Amino acid sequence: MSKPSIPKGTRDFGPEAMVRRQWMFDTLRSVFETHGFVPIQTPSFENLSTLTGKYGEEGDQLIFKILNNGDYLAKADASAWERSDSKAMTASISKKALRYDLTVPFARFVVMNRNDLSFPFRRYQIQNVWRGDRPGKGRYQEFTQCDCDIIGSESSLCELDLVQVFDEALRALGVPGYRIVVNDRRILQGLSASCGVATSEFQAWTVAMDKLDKVGADGVMKELAERGVSDQARAALPELVRLRDLATNDARLDAVAARIQGQTAGEAALAELRTMLGRAAKLGVASSALEVDPLLARGLDYYTGAIFEVVVNDAPVGSICGGGRYADLTGIFGWQGMSGVGISFGADRIEDVLNHFDAWPALVNRGLDALIVHMDGGGLDVELTLAAELRKAGLSVELYPEPAKLKKQFKYADDRRAQTVLVRGEDERLAGTVTVKTMATGHQTAVRLEDVAAHLLAQRGV
Amino acid sequence: MSKPSIPKGTRDFGPEAMVRRQWMFDTLRSVFETHGFVPIQTPSFENLSTLTGKYGEEGDQLIFKILNNGDYLAKADASAWERSDSKAMTASISKKALRYDLTVPFARFVVMNRNDLSFPFRRYQIQNVWRGDRPGKGRYQEFTQCDCDIIGSESSLCELDLVQVFDEALRALGVPGYRIVVNDRRILQGLSASCGVATSEFQAWTVAMDKLDKVGADGVMKELAERGVSDQARAALPELVRLRDLATNDARLDAVAARIQGQTAGEAALAELRTMLGRAAKLGVASSALEVDPLLARGLDYYTGAIFEVVVNDAPVGSICGGGRYADLTGIFGWQGMSGVGISFGADRIEDVLNHFDAWPALVNRGLDALIVHMDGGGLDVELTLAAELRKAGLSVELYPEPAKLKKQFKYADDRRAQTVLVRGEDERLAGTVTVKTMATGHQTAVRLEDVAAHLLAQRGV
Repeated sequence: MSKPSIPKGTRDFGPEAMVRRQWMFDTLRSVFETHGFVPIQTPSFENLSTLTGKYGEEGDQLIFKILNNGDYLAKADASAWERSDSKAMTASISKKALRYDLTVPFARFVVMNRNDLSFPFRRYQIQNVWRGDRPGKGRYQEFTQCDCDIIGSESSLCELDLVQVFDEALRALGVPGYRIVVNDRRILQGLSASCGVATSEFQAWTVAMDKLDKVGADGVMKELAERGVSDQARAALPELVRLRDLATNDARLDAVAARIQGQTAGEAALAELRTMLGRAAKLGVASSALEVDPLLARGLDYYTGAIFEVVVNDAPVGSICGGGRYADLTGIFGWQGMSGVGISFGADRIEDVLNHFDAWPALVNRGLDALIVHMDGGGLDVELTLAAELRKAGLSVELYPEPAKLKKQFKYADDRRAQTVLVRGEDERLAGTVTVKTMATGHQTAVRLEDVAAHLLAQRGV
Repeated sequence: MSKPSIPKGTRDFGPEAMVRRQWMFDTLRSVFETHGFVPIQTPSFENLSTLTGKYGEEGDQLIFKILNNGDYLAKADASAWERSDSKAMTASISKKALRYDLTVPFARFVVMNRNDLSFPFRRYQIQNVWRGDRPGKGRYQEFTQCDCDIIGSESSLCELDLVQVFDEALRALGVPGYRIVVNDRRILQGLSASCGVATSEFQAWTVAMDKLDKVGADGVMKELAERGVSDQARAALPELVRLRDLATNDARLDAVAARIQGQTAGEAALAELRTMLGRAAKLGVASSALEVDPLLARGLDYYTGAIFEVVVNDAPVGSICGGGRYADLTGIFGWQGMSGVGISFGADRIEDVLNHFDAWPALVNRGLDALIVHMDGGGLDVELTLAAELRKAGLSVELYPEPAKLKKQFKYADDRRAQTVLVRGEDERLAGTVTVKTMATGHQTAVRLEDVAAHLLAQRGV
């Protein structure tokens, strides 16, 4: 038999990781809920047709398709087989596919449940998504997204709300040195126009600009040329890049304002952004945590207004959160004109960051409260009753299942990080007591049987 | 554009269902943890080879296989294509498959992490599983299992522990009229031998007996004949069926004891079961909640010792939980001789039962604590600061994002089940107060701005 393994890009989570992750999700939930977001969940697989065409050509290829059950070849596309055309074959042998993000299923959910929801509708959703990306550092084929979206309002108070959620959640999680980077697609559009980029060139320009951090200004210049962006538009690139170097958000906004003067949509976006920043500052979001980057582009996504990205100084991974506004979130499913804005926390990258900086809180994993030693010969009735009582008091308790040697049972207690070991030998039986050994100090004390729960609870409180 | 839909056998969970489900999972977690179980999670997809051959022929067909990404036809099995043999084709175009249960991935996890775990290892795991079953009442293609397993101990104290977990968890969830049905494969084997069933016939006999509730004694008789079980063995069936009709657990155990006298394994199992039942009774498990069924078989599963099933009186679904002992849980992955025992809660069926009996606790969904009305003309600074303060106090708060008509905002508050609506009009601004309207009673009261948090917390306490 070959040694068992798991697919590349996936992970098992053992007890240590799970306790941390559970704490992370509970923390996010609690921030989301104070902001009035309500939870939903959608199925892990959707109809293939729900997902295809929503994430661009490349995204479509990364979606995991599920083979139809039963005799799927009966309906397989013979001509696709003849041509060895995998892409053409897929629809004939696969009807379902794994969720690729939470936004498209959310839009589908809203359209299907529109009559039962009240708008603006704010939902949060914490679920796994799957992508056939090449596995690598911070890149998993299965990962957990934690999304908040507000649909049905164009008010920029929604953006403010989400910035607060970012700030409160990342602070509560103890993520060190995070920066919430903001921009607006309309500002980006204004800047591109100010460089003489034609509207028809805007998408190509955006895709190239999105790579600025990865390939540098020279790389972007090259890509712009390849994508056929005009010489004039390319010539303005260095000036744009210098916008980022200005020291303060205000300086960047002023410089942008000068460049996009007279462009209505861009100016409106700029005014909204200034208001949002002013309010965020008054509400306590640190200015070091909120940064305007007029060149932030967020790639191919269909954002039309605000865009967000959260990065962490000196972190081993890329952005840990993202988001933005779609003018027409549900249009893909036939319901036009519903504007939505949302953000997504990448739980696995946040986990990587907290691991990297060793920044998890200490309290998270307490281990077992008590291991009760299994003595040979005793009837166990008292031990079993004691275990039940302690559990009723909310303590985490095990009775060792076999009358193994004491050394083995204490070793097990150690491995399980038991806070205490409870021993009831012959002397204790006669005296009606239990010896409570505190593992951290080695201290032992005799406690009357009926007082053990109170004793452990008091000790736990310390 | 066609109307969006979701695959048959899957469900969306809206906010109401989510709040209930979350409470259900939190309740289970907390019971599991008091019994010393630690959480793990495994990937949603495993290597196909990890899963195939573990669930029988039928199970293999119900596993959802994931199509390889990219040009999968390049390696497709041409001879399988020629023969239109879907089953033979699969391995050449699919390397991964969705988890079918939590037990096999757990066994795989234990083998891969054996050096880092201390045994006996008790883990719980709450994750979705996927099966290509025909969708129907209580049958979903995606559902959530909540499993507890103990591996590395043959002590029947483990069985007792799991019976306590069943009892405590189902009581905490408020499942009405549940019965934990127990048996042991060795008892079943003893009974079959007492009827003259040959060892070679035992599996066929078990499969048939497992259908007793579904098809009745006549149906089983017919199936036994079809499966070639001897006439003598079939003739004893009515006697066996009568064992179930005995009124008490003790009467059933005594009758079984008389039948299997001299069969060592069966008698040992019987003694363990008696001890377990005695201890469970002393520990407070109601005798009406724990029932011996000497014919309980649990179908094709590879159980070798204790078997469990939980059913609910007058419920619209079949069993809501199951479990049992495997003498050799990790043998399938090359580590022999590790005995394990585990149980599984079917969360979706428990949800169906609680829905059916309308047995959810009332406290679960409180809705929004406060909606702050958005007044036209105000600067909003005070409202935003108030919202932030209330959230810091742990309250769930929204500021309506637009200066809509009051009627609309109150309607929204109603839809969102807001406990209170906070209004700060011109009078309130001058007086430094906020009008707090309690939605349930319609009562309105003016509260000083700085006292609103305390006021709402006090009201929430009621």
